[in-house]
Amino acid sequence: MALAHKGVDARTVGWHFGEKRLPAGLNRVPVLVDDGEVIGDSTEIALHLENKYHNGPSLFGGDGGEVHARFVVAWADTVLHPMLFPALALDVLAQVKPEAESYFRQTREARLGTTLERAAASKAEQVETVRAVLAPVRHVVEKREYLGGDEPSYADYAVFGAFQWARCVGGPEVVGATDPVHAWQERMLDLFDGLAREAKTAKDN
Amino acid sequence: MALAHKGVDARTVGWHFGEKRLPAGLNRVPVLVDDGEVIGDSTEIALHLENKYHNGPSLFGGDGGEVHARFVVAWADTVLHPMLFPALALDVLAQVKPEAESYFRQTREARLGTTLERAAASKAEQVETVRAVLAPVRHVVEKREYLGGDEPSYADYAVFGAFQWARCVGGPEVVGATDPVHAWQERMLDLFDGLAREAKTAKDN
Repeated sequence: MALAHKGVDARTVGWHFGEKRLPAGLNRVPVLVDDGEVIGDSTEIALHLENKYHNGPSLFGGDGGEVHARFVVAWADTVLHPMLFPALALDVLAQVKPEAESYFRQTREARLGTTLERAAASKAEQVETVRAVLAPVRHVVEKREYLGGDEPSYADYAVFGAFQWARCVGGPEVVGATDPVHAWQERMLDLFDGLAREAKTAKDN
Repeated sequence: MALAHKGVDARTVGWHFGEKRLPAGLNRVPVLVDDGEVIGDSTEIALHLENKYHNGPSLFGGDGGEVHARFVVAWADTVLHPMLFPALALDVLAQVKPEAESYFRQTREARLGTTLERAAASKAEQVETVRAVLAPVRHVVEKREYLGGDEPSYADYAVFGAFQWARCVGGPEVVGATDPVHAWQERMLDLFDGLAREAKTAKDN
């Protein structure tokens, strides 16, 4: 989404759990390789794009936007994603290649402190918890089109990542159809000629 | 804090629960009366100061800063304050004037769905929950001086309000001494020659 926002063409390389072919020193995706420069971490990639590509619209809306976006990103990383994971645990597992299943199960069960099956058992309640935790997103998008105001910002993409994750693994709907956050999700799916809407989902496999 | 940030002199008028002398149409504090103009709501007040007083440093860091600050404010309003309230319920009650006690108890117990005493019973656990919920603040202030980056922003003041509330009613320490959020709180207390540190607390009554 950040690449599309900046109008930067890129070749996307798929990646699966357990694959070891990341550039040296990096052990997580996403990774951007830009003219030989290797950048890991979504926010670092967004900052790289912001600083290097001046033709596209700003991803952060200036210095104040950038530093405040870090709060939104930290919230998505430390609250939204971890709270959503139990509800998606078995849906994600179903997308993991057989040879990576035991790696995925061991690392995720250690993080959860329980089995994937037990974590996923109360999916409906977990979705309710996630809906409650989305209150600050709801407060903003009730009044504005995007977390970035009239235009989407990197903060929107960071939060939307969780929704797209749920969508692509064939998980439950994160928010109900009448939730203002749902309308925002639809706007995000429409951006860049439906880029996120066209992403491959579990149904395509 | 926002007035001090903008270097605007103001006369502060104390206010207690149950008092009815707010300007017409307003039923909550804070209220700013600026040259006859009446503004309610902290964020509206901050925006008024930002737009009217151009000599002081920016409270938001531009348009992108403003829109993203709204997320931080919404998070403080919808997550931090409500989660902190049970731990402070009896400390706040002790500061309420006798004639407003029943108003305070009725409205707050309706909101809590239980008595103030029962809400406050597991104070230590509630403080632990608040500490967990502060993760996004912690992630930012581990790396930067303030949520606003090198300088405090309105987002800092919005979050700090919860800490100052706990402090002024003589409630528990929100974060432990080794928490990076504690160091941030100390920086906030030092701002403007210790303005917040000098605020009247329960001990002064």
